[in-house]
Amino acid sequence: MTTTTRSLTELHSQVQHFYAHQMHHLDNRRFEEYAATFTEDGVFQHSPGAEPARGRAAIVRELVEFHKKFDGDPVRRRHWFNQIALEPQADGTVRSTVYALVVTVRPGGKPEINPSCTVHDVLVVDGDHIRLKSRLVTHDQVF
Amino acid sequence: MTTTTRSLTELHSQVQHFYAHQMHHLDNRRFEEYAATFTEDGVFQHSPGAEPARGRAAIVRELVEFHKKFDGDPVRRRHWFNQIALEPQADGTVRSTVYALVVTVRPGGKPEINPSCTVHDVLVVDGDHIRLKSRLVTHDQVF
Amino acid sequence: MTTTTRSLTELHSQVQHFYAHQMHHLDNRRFEEYAATFTEDGVFQHSPGAEPARGRAAIVRELVEFHKKFDGDPVRRRHWFNQIALEPQADGTVRSTVYALVVTVRPGGKPEINPSCTVHDVLVVDGDHIRLKSRLVTHDQVF
Repeated sequence: MTTTTRSLTELHSQVQHFYAHQMHHLDNRRFEEYAATFTEDGVFQHSPGAEPARGRAAIVRELVEFHKKFDGDPVRRRHWFNQIALEPQADGTVRSTVYALVVTVRPGGKPEINPSCTVHDVLVVDGDHIRLKSRLVTHDQVF
Repeated sequence: MTTTTRSLTELHSQVQHFYAHQMHHLDNRRFEEYAATFTEDGVFQHSPGAEPARGRAAIVRELVEFHKKFDGDPVRRRHWFNQIALEPQADGTVRSTVYALVVTVRPGGKPEINPSCTVHDVLVVDGDHIRLKSRLVTHDQVF
Repeated sequence: MTTTTRSLTELHSQVQHFYAHQMHHLDNRRFEEYAATFTEDGVFQHSPGAEPARGRAAIVRELVEFHKKFDGDPVRRRHWFNQIALEPQADGTVRSTVYALVVTVRPGGKPEINPSCTVHDVLVVDGDHIRLKSRLVTHDQVF
């Protein structure tokens, strides 16, 4: 990938659309589809203290485990992303740093917006194809 | 419209800009301009229980009616959109599924963010021209 | 700059990415980098009642001054942007009108989202290069 402004602009739009589908997968609990947005050996760490999940099968297991806390809880979650800043790296990958808010809604309730996070992604871009090499999510309320 | 990643990426950016102008129209209560973003026979249903408004004149009437509840209420509303996921359909239309939050602000007050919705659009794309064939808004707090 | 839909779509994506980096600069208190996103004689007015800062040095001073109120306050701020609506002007500049929310988080706390603003920018676009000629921020709770 070249790093001209034009190609970076195009990539920015492509990454944003990639994230949209990815988060629809996550929020609809299509974990296999979410895991498939990572490379085969992709690493997913949803908070700095958590053990990173390595590989798609481990990512699915991690998500199944994480969502058990919502068993019997009629909750809808929506992951919002904003301010996607891309930085091409010397090794050909692309760093993507993104603001994230999680919107949580329960029947008859008002949206709760918590936590505020920063998503630190490393993207592998192969032509029209984007995959996550790694994702680390930091939480803004943890200093 | 072809459905290559490149053209879909371009369309994603175009749709996002289309929505920006559309929501500025709505939040500034330029209802004629909002209605003009629909096809002549466009259908607008702002919640699953509501009777759908069919055609631009009906959409304007629906919006005038809806906003009467704000008469004498110095409120500003801002519609936020996020995670626009496009899916080209076999009939040439494009499905667009979008997260939405409504931000409400009154003089001297703090923003209230409610409700959280999902916008289900069907877009007609004719070259550089986008129009809404239909919009259905579902509300996340209704299960 | 031509104002075809295609070039405007591309510019929309480019502006969005420009804002992402700019807001990461601001929220990480890299004020020199933030000021460098303005033209040499750029004007920054963060609220209608404030004296506008003219030129990059003045913009840096304004931001240093503004952030003194957070001295000793372990706060993280995140500026969210949405619904970026571009309007090319006869003089070759581009008006950009943007919804903004400020997310504030303190250790162990929940995100506070306040205020809701509208950002009124005038952009100078020179090929792949974007700079802010002026920015005026209005606050939605002030009527």
